[in-house]
Amino acid sequence: MDYKQIIAGIYEAIRPYSEVGKQADYIPALAKVDPDQFGMCLHTIEGEEFPFMSSDVRFSIQSISKVFSLAMCLSLKGEELWKRVGKEPSGTAFNSLVQLEIEKGIPRNPFINAGAIVLSDILISELSDPEGEFLHFVRTLCGDDSIDFNMEVATSERETGYLNAAIANMLKYHGTIRNDIEDVLMFYFKMCSLEMSCRQLSKAMLAFTNHQPFEYAGYKLSTSRIKRLNAVMQTCGFYDEAGEFSYLVGLPGKSGVGGGIVAIYPKRYAVAVWSPRLNSKGNSVMGMKALELLTTETQESIF
Amino acid sequence: MDYKQIIAGIYEAIRPYSEVGKQADYIPALAKVDPDQFGMCLHTIEGEEFPFMSSDVRFSIQSISKVFSLAMCLSLKGEELWKRVGKEPSGTAFNSLVQLEIEKGIPRNPFINAGAIVLSDILISELSDPEGEFLHFVRTLCGDDSIDFNMEVATSERETGYLNAAIANMLKYHGTIRNDIEDVLMFYFKMCSLEMSCRQLSKAMLAFTNHQPFEYAGYKLSTSRIKRLNAVMQTCGFYDEAGEFSYLVGLPGKSGVGGGIVAIYPKRYAVAVWSPRLNSKGNSVMGMKALELLTTETQESIF
Amino acid sequence: MDYKQIIAGIYEAIRPYSEVGKQADYIPALAKVDPDQFGMCLHTIEGEEFPFMSSDVRFSIQSISKVFSLAMCLSLKGEELWKRVGKEPSGTAFNSLVQLEIEKGIPRNPFINAGAIVLSDILISELSDPEGEFLHFVRTLCGDDSIDFNMEVATSERETGYLNAAIANMLKYHGTIRNDIEDVLMFYFKMCSLEMSCRQLSKAMLAFTNHQPFEYAGYKLSTSRIKRLNAVMQTCGFYDEAGEFSYLVGLPGKSGVGGGIVAIYPKRYAVAVWSPRLNSKGNSVMGMKALELLTTETQESIF
Amino acid sequence: MDYKQIIAGIYEAIRPYSEVGKQADYIPALAKVDPDQFGMCLHTIEGEEFPFMSSDVRFSIQSISKVFSLAMCLSLKGEELWKRVGKEPSGTAFNSLVQLEIEKGIPRNPFINAGAIVLSDILISELSDPEGEFLHFVRTLCGDDSIDFNMEVATSERETGYLNAAIANMLKYHGTIRNDIEDVLMFYFKMCSLEMSCRQLSKAMLAFTNHQPFEYAGYKLSTSRIKRLNAVMQTCGFYDEAGEFSYLVGLPGKSGVGGGIVAIYPKRYAVAVWSPRLNSKGNSVMGMKALELLTTETQESIF
Repeated sequence: MDYKQIIAGIYEAIRPYSEVGKQADYIPALAKVDPDQFGMCLHTIEGEEFPFMSSDVRFSIQSISKVFSLAMCLSLKGEELWKRVGKEPSGTAFNSLVQLEIEKGIPRNPFINAGAIVLSDILISELSDPEGEFLHFVRTLCGDDSIDFNMEVATSERETGYLNAAIANMLKYHGTIRNDIEDVLMFYFKMCSLEMSCRQLSKAMLAFTNHQPFEYAGYKLSTSRIKRLNAVMQTCGFYDEAGEFSYLVGLPGKSGVGGGIVAIYPKRYAVAVWSPRLNSKGNSVMGMKALELLTTETQESIF
Repeated sequence: MDYKQIIAGIYEAIRPYSEVGKQADYIPALAKVDPDQFGMCLHTIEGEEFPFMSSDVRFSIQSISKVFSLAMCLSLKGEELWKRVGKEPSGTAFNSLVQLEIEKGIPRNPFINAGAIVLSDILISELSDPEGEFLHFVRTLCGDDSIDFNMEVATSERETGYLNAAIANMLKYHGTIRNDIEDVLMFYFKMCSLEMSCRQLSKAMLAFTNHQPFEYAGYKLSTSRIKRLNAVMQTCGFYDEAGEFSYLVGLPGKSGVGGGIVAIYPKRYAVAVWSPRLNSKGNSVMGMKALELLTTETQESIF
Repeated sequence: MDYKQIIAGIYEAIRPYSEVGKQADYIPALAKVDPDQFGMCLHTIEGEEFPFMSSDVRFSIQSISKVFSLAMCLSLKGEELWKRVGKEPSGTAFNSLVQLEIEKGIPRNPFINAGAIVLSDILISELSDPEGEFLHFVRTLCGDDSIDFNMEVATSERETGYLNAAIANMLKYHGTIRNDIEDVLMFYFKMCSLEMSCRQLSKAMLAFTNHQPFEYAGYKLSTSRIKRLNAVMQTCGFYDEAGEFSYLVGLPGKSGVGGGIVAIYPKRYAVAVWSPRLNSKGNSVMGMKALELLTTETQESIF
Repeated sequence: MDYKQIIAGIYEAIRPYSEVGKQADYIPALAKVDPDQFGMCLHTIEGEEFPFMSSDVRFSIQSISKVFSLAMCLSLKGEELWKRVGKEPSGTAFNSLVQLEIEKGIPRNPFINAGAIVLSDILISELSDPEGEFLHFVRTLCGDDSIDFNMEVATSERETGYLNAAIANMLKYHGTIRNDIEDVLMFYFKMCSLEMSCRQLSKAMLAFTNHQPFEYAGYKLSTSRIKRLNAVMQTCGFYDEAGEFSYLVGLPGKSGVGGGIVAIYPKRYAVAVWSPRLNSKGNSVMGMKALELLTTETQESIF
């Protein structure tokens, strides 16, 4: 499959959408990113790499970080993890706070904010140096020790993150998180502030394609568990657009409000795409289009 | 892959669950079914057939019928269909009526009752003989002209179907259904009352594995559309247990309150399993277990 | 207190609002009413009567009828009534269907549609001729045998009353109503279709001012029960504007979508006002203003 | 009216309920209160005082403090206040967080926690020494300079007040509160921690009976505004038991989780009752009974 040519063709096809949507601007650090950028990179399990355009520009991966924290938690806690967080799609544009209240403090899944805040709490409980270990894990996944948190972004998010603070207080009220609320939130925001390029992200996600045993930085996951992690991405990875992404793209994936999207074709490839302009659901407009065309053009999808 | 032996092994492994759960009993016709039955059948795209135990006993397919009506509607209306019904998981144990009200009468997806009632309305609008065409379509899929509605079941469901009548009235209030409420409901309940065996069901579902062009009884669906139909099954096929099924089984599928479950491994096989005892979410206890073991034992899943 | 002059002064003061709002138009019979009408009438417990302008024009009393059916049900069932309907304010702009589902089929109070449909069911169960008895009761209250249902309105409401039919089906599903859904709905719509003038309404409501023992057409209510009925009007009489009415007017009352409002000053007077143009909450614009000024001008309110 | 004898009679009648219910125990300071206490005091506008049993024991007035902060805010902001908080009953056992989210951060009324937190924010914005002024206002109302906050209670509530912190963060997210979240919460909890006896409370509430111009510690409220404040108590004073209290007692009032209840008979008397054991809605069991009997025995109620 000539992914290089396919990706170039995709870019031509989606250029008409290059000014559609608006980048996230709820904190200054995100608002000042040039919205008219596009990067993409695909890594095959055979070791080929297909970078395209701004594939080396680092951006705020935001919610994509939840895949990494979930992998760590699954490795540390196993199936027991699901006692503190569900794995059902949230299925609602209404904010998770309503759902959280109705469901007594157990978040629907690890990819909504409430769920990821629980993951943050678990890592703090389990690890002596959660921030260092998280960084080391992701650096190992992508084989690049230079990636790091952006503290300006993390601090800025904490300062204006009233909704996430409300969620954390609700979780504490229900006993779902056990550590100090501020510690849990700051670690959560730091993980979200991680900056990576498409090339680094697709490299890191390659670990989840199940082409070889998963063991990185001491974190092991069985083949079966990797499959399950992909299943959770498939049903829960795109907020209330999970069905739409599954329908149009047909691959497990995860998006972030920084404009990045990763997707996995098990036993074939991992791909990352980035463009800051978002649709009304908070997913990258060009990113969604690019991945839809990728599976359409290649005729490759899990279905 | 020796599916015959694998299925036999699965049955041994799940026997401890044979008395767990309770069959549906909200209408007499379902309540009187012997709950201690188990049937299973797998059809490969190569044409092999692996029937097991009561694989020829017919049962009420109930919500599995929604896959057939969705296929017909997709063929008739194309992507335009999604203006009248969504394709996002419903994600809530709360009944769909709440969601329906909040979302102004557009059901979340075609596999919750509200969505399937809309499909029923569309078929009535589009077809001169909707019941005859529906029967003909399913009979063609499984190559068996003997399958039929069970009018005792359909009538009984209508008589006690107050919740579905409430949903239909809500849909009519919002203008999502256009035909007479009684006509729409009766056709909906007839489709649900269809009686099929595991052997017939897995044969019929084989058409959705994308191993050959889909064209049955005049209904055509492109390869891409079949993929998308599978994507909808993956994210929405199991009420508020869609995430759980995706996590444990990893295949697109659909369950019915009669105790049947179908699943599809694209380009490999289709499988149907039946056992009337249900878990608290309304899905067959042994059916869920059997399919979980099938993908575990065969190491085959889409992820 | 010179109510005649006060009412005339009120009318001058509220004339600027005479073209604000829109009459109900969901059925033709209501849409064709001339919206620029205003009537008012006040009856004191001393027997004085203060009619003003179109106080003899009959209009569709709609939800005001719920006060009469509640009085009958309270007389027939006593405190046992509250097992099948609550007496708490509904407090939400969201339609009662959500609340009804969450609260397992027990309507919040007798003045939301769901609650009044339960009253309709109770009257059908308790009375051999519910329609005749209801008419006889209201005719006795106002001493006028000419008042009657408007069958064109009732039939028209039933034909388009999908939301109420959804509610009735929900109630039936939960077992809160026991009679045939169609019978319950038709009787409900007939009661709502009752046509009365302001003069007839204020005369009828005088019975609820607790100035003399309540016994009409065989229906008795103790002083204590009349107080309680007033308390329910105070907290639940104006949908999600109950607080606003209590705040501005300070009297127990009940509004109808036909533009009528009744209010009671216990042991002093009853008053009815009518003007078809409604605010966004479904209450008469001029009616609300007139009653606000009445209690402000007279310095009379229960608080 | 011989209130002394009536109250003594009431106590005899409600003694069978003296061990029904459970005191609040979510913080140690409340849990250690002897639950088997009962106090009551009634002040008439003529200046008579009817203390009964433990009417001089001070207890945590908790939510009763919201009446005082509302009076101050109404005096400071006038009708403009209602732009930041509603005056409709909340009408739901579901916690206010759901409602708050659906209604975009405007609390339903000033007596639910969310609303009172907004009052706290307003007082901080308007006053240079909010705590001092609040204390001075309440001390002036009851003519007793010894009443004070209980800092042990306030601190303890803040430490475990995750739900209120979640609410405050939601309000901040929506822009409804403007000051520092911690400042707003601490002031809120301090007001709730105020300790007063029944005698002090009924004396303070006498100011709201509208028997003379309201002007205390520089805070003025017109007769009309006092009426409206009573109307808000009537419809919103008892969480989701507002209808029940209105139905059984028929007076405007306010309860607190410390077991206190105040009620007002406009132009007649104010009354306070206290007993720590609560019903499932968080209202004092004996307090509710005592006030129900008071209006029944005296035949005095606003309806």
